Amino acid sequence: MSIEAVSALPPDMDLQESLRRELGEVVRTDPVALRAAQGDRSGHVSSEPPLAVVEARSTADVQAAMRFATAHRIPVVPRGAGSGLAGAAQAGGGELVVSTASMTRVLEISRDDELAVVEPGVVNADLNDQLAAHGLFWAPDPASRAISTVGGNIATNAGGLHCVKYGVTREAVLALEVVLADGRVIRTGHRTVKGVTGYDLTALMIGSEGTLGIVTEATLRLRPVPRGVPVTLSAAFDSVEQAARAASVMVASGVRPAVLELLDATALAGLGAYLDLDLGGRGAQLLVQTDGDAAEREAVDAETIIRTLGGRVERSATPEDGERLFEIRRAFHASNEAQGAVLIEDVAVPRSALPAMFAAIEAVQERYGIRIPTVAHAGDGNLHPNFVFEADTVDGFVEVPSHVWEAADELFQACLRLGGTLTGEHGVGLLKRRWLRDELGDDVLELQRGLKAVFDPLGLLNPGKAV
Amino acid sequence: MSIEAVSALPPDMDLQESLRRELGEVVRTDPVALRAAQGDRSGHVSSEPPLAVVEARSTADVQAAMRFATAHRIPVVPRGAGSGLAGAAQAGGGELVVSTASMTRVLEISRDDELAVVEPGVVNADLNDQLAAHGLFWAPDPASRAISTVGGNIATNAGGLHCVKYGVTREAVLALEVVLADGRVIRTGHRTVKGVTGYDLTALMIGSEGTLGIVTEATLRLRPVPRGVPVTLSAAFDSVEQAARAASVMVASGVRPAVLELLDATALAGLGAYLDLDLGGRGAQLLVQTDGDAAEREAVDAETIIRTLGGRVERSATPEDGERLFEIRRAFHASNEAQGAVLIEDVAVPRSALPAMFAAIEAVQERYGIRIPTVAHAGDGNLHPNFVFEADTVDGFVEVPSHVWEAADELFQACLRLGGTLTGEHGVGLLKRRWLRDELGDDVLELQRGLKAVFDPLGLLNPGKAV
Repeated sequence: MSIEAVSALPPDMDLQESLRRELGEVVRTDPVALRAAQGDRSGHVSSEPPLAVVEARSTADVQAAMRFATAHRIPVVPRGAGSGLAGAAQAGGGELVVSTASMTRVLEISRDDELAVVEPGVVNADLNDQLAAHGLFWAPDPASRAISTVGGNIATNAGGLHCVKYGVTREAVLALEVVLADGRVIRTGHRTVKGVTGYDLTALMIGSEGTLGIVTEATLRLRPVPRGVPVTLSAAFDSVEQAARAASVMVASGVRPAVLELLDATALAGLGAYLDLDLGGRGAQLLVQTDGDAAEREAVDAETIIRTLGGRVERSATPEDGERLFEIRRAFHASNEAQGAVLIEDVAVPRSALPAMFAAIEAVQERYGIRIPTVAHAGDGNLHPNFVFEADTVDGFVEVPSHVWEAADELFQACLRLGGTLTGEHGVGLLKRRWLRDELGDDVLELQRGLKAVFDPLGLLNPGKAV
Repeated sequence: MSIEAVSALPPDMDLQESLRRELGEVVRTDPVALRAAQGDRSGHVSSEPPLAVVEARSTADVQAAMRFATAHRIPVVPRGAGSGLAGAAQAGGGELVVSTASMTRVLEISRDDELAVVEPGVVNADLNDQLAAHGLFWAPDPASRAISTVGGNIATNAGGLHCVKYGVTREAVLALEVVLADGRVIRTGHRTVKGVTGYDLTALMIGSEGTLGIVTEATLRLRPVPRGVPVTLSAAFDSVEQAARAASVMVASGVRPAVLELLDATALAGLGAYLDLDLGGRGAQLLVQTDGDAAEREAVDAETIIRTLGGRVERSATPEDGERLFEIRRAFHASNEAQGAVLIEDVAVPRSALPAMFAAIEAVQERYGIRIPTVAHAGDGNLHPNFVFEADTVDGFVEVPSHVWEAADELFQACLRLGGTLTGEHGVGLLKRRWLRDELGDDVLELQRGLKAVFDPLGLLNPGKAV
């Protein structure tokens, strides 16, 4: 070996070697593992591969990784399934990835206490399959539920279709086991439904995107599967304003739909082409599902409201029929991907501002000549404008062009003016950091960073993300 | 004036004077105001009166008070109605009380967005009276609702009878305006239902008992008043185990009662004597209320479960009839106060541990020879053991004897062994601080104090309370 070759040896190799000595075979440094950890589902990708990926099998593995990282001052990127849409899980040069995706055990399911104790790597849908046998479910149901992990859902405070009735992740977690930056383990929260001893560290961890600690166990608050047969309604409207108004009136009337989704005209045009359906000329589609003991009665009221406000409504006679009405909604992401590269956004506004937000999206769409099909969790005022554009793909990762970011910026500013927020359920990650100060202001941002420093004084946990 | 007299002048008087110069007539130093601020509803009272009470009328008043406190390094005790049960609002010598009890305006009620923007001093019941005209309600309903303020409810993360179905305060607040220790104002949260930009400072503030900042405005999440007529059931059981089991089975069956209260035998004996009713020999009483579209159907299921598990059930035919069934529950506190001095405790356990917790209470009762009538929000596993004892009263304030604290200690330890928590909805305040480390452990307590220091680096806000 020549002297040049030795000096060219990256110091990374020494670190990889000593990491392997301390943690054993859970350390991966193969190009496939490193490459995968450079990106997530946002399409954004880091410029260099990380140092290594620790595929933790236990809390002890996570502790060992964090002690190593602290000793060597190595930044750490916690990671679940990598299904995030804001870049929080993506890792770059010199960073150590600690993945909990292999910690998939369900440790306890209690029907009496309506809780489950799980490891963070269990996939949302897999957990819910197991819970169904006990007549229970865990409410968060992000569109990624078939691939995303409970740990990732916690990191982003995930929502989904059903949170309009059943709440988001923050309302569905009782307690956490967390490994701190220095490798210590803490427990937050309780197995009880209520509790006010000390500040709510559980709530603080939820949505913190891996910047305060690594969740290694979660005690989840469950609900009994609603009784009876859900009723599904699908309603076509001439305009998105009408549909948004119907959603707003419905919620204000006391009907508590379990699903209340709104597709705008651009979305419907794309879906019509993709599914070869005649959806032409529809201004918007509203999808409503009622469930539980009051399903029938609430559906009748919802139908009346829809008709009164100009909607043409179709109603499921059977659960299978209901599934058919859901098909259009489920095909939304596929229909966008069929048209080009996609940037999925996630703004939220007060429910009454939904029509104004749709108008703002349409204005941005026209000004920038970008198609922005949009679906909204209308009951929550949470919209997902999907920017569809042409772009180069490198290794399966998409580079978002600058004019798309400019359009997104305009959309975010409109959202903030309407009293809204940058992100309802996806998180800030890397991609929305530049708008964070606009929303939070200097004083709050300073407090946030102070809180971060209490948990992670060396700044090793997911640096450059979220706050 | 002799030299002796001048040097004997308390420096407090100078501070009072300069406080008055800066804040004007909102500063109170009369003995009535100072004396009132020495205690709360816990019965515990401080040994010396505070420096002054600032009866804030506006956010600006609170800011001025905090700037003054910071400049002169004066500890501040935030206060609402003083209806707390853990001593968090009580102030002692050298402390400045900042009361928001006079900030009572309701600034906005939005039916469309199901929210209200209020000042912190509005009384819970007054707010709900105003909301009722809009077909809305704010869910937290502590027993103190007729006297406690929204600000106090937020400070303690208050619960109540209805939180079994409608959630506690943390699930009913969207956003806050907060004055920090140094007088700056921040806004946390959003008017939107969902949002994940930055750490959840709103959740952190809720239940923080005035140690992180002073809430000067709150955006509350409301709900539509449930439709239809509620159904009330009252059921007698031979044993508390049976009643607790019925509560547990009911919740696990998918019935979502809006009220699910349990009175134990000691409570019933006291109530029988107080109300001159024949409740003799009853082991426990369960009170169930169902509401909304499924009220009737859920009541039928609840009745079946009660009968199956050995309960004798009575059912309301009319709302007035339902009120009658509630009377026993409502008389609980009065019946205890008729018997002696009362220390109201507030433990919570996983629902399945309710029978074990009742057994522990009975054991403590026998060992210490203290009557401990207990009511439980059974659906939440939240119990209020009321220690009834003889004690001296000074100026209307009760001194809790040491053997009562010893009994309480034993009860808390039993609760922690059952996976429970010291306080479900009243807070830690002053009176439960000595058990805080037992529950949280050293590492979590250290983090809590670190968080406190981020908000309040000089340690001026409610020192010695909560954490």
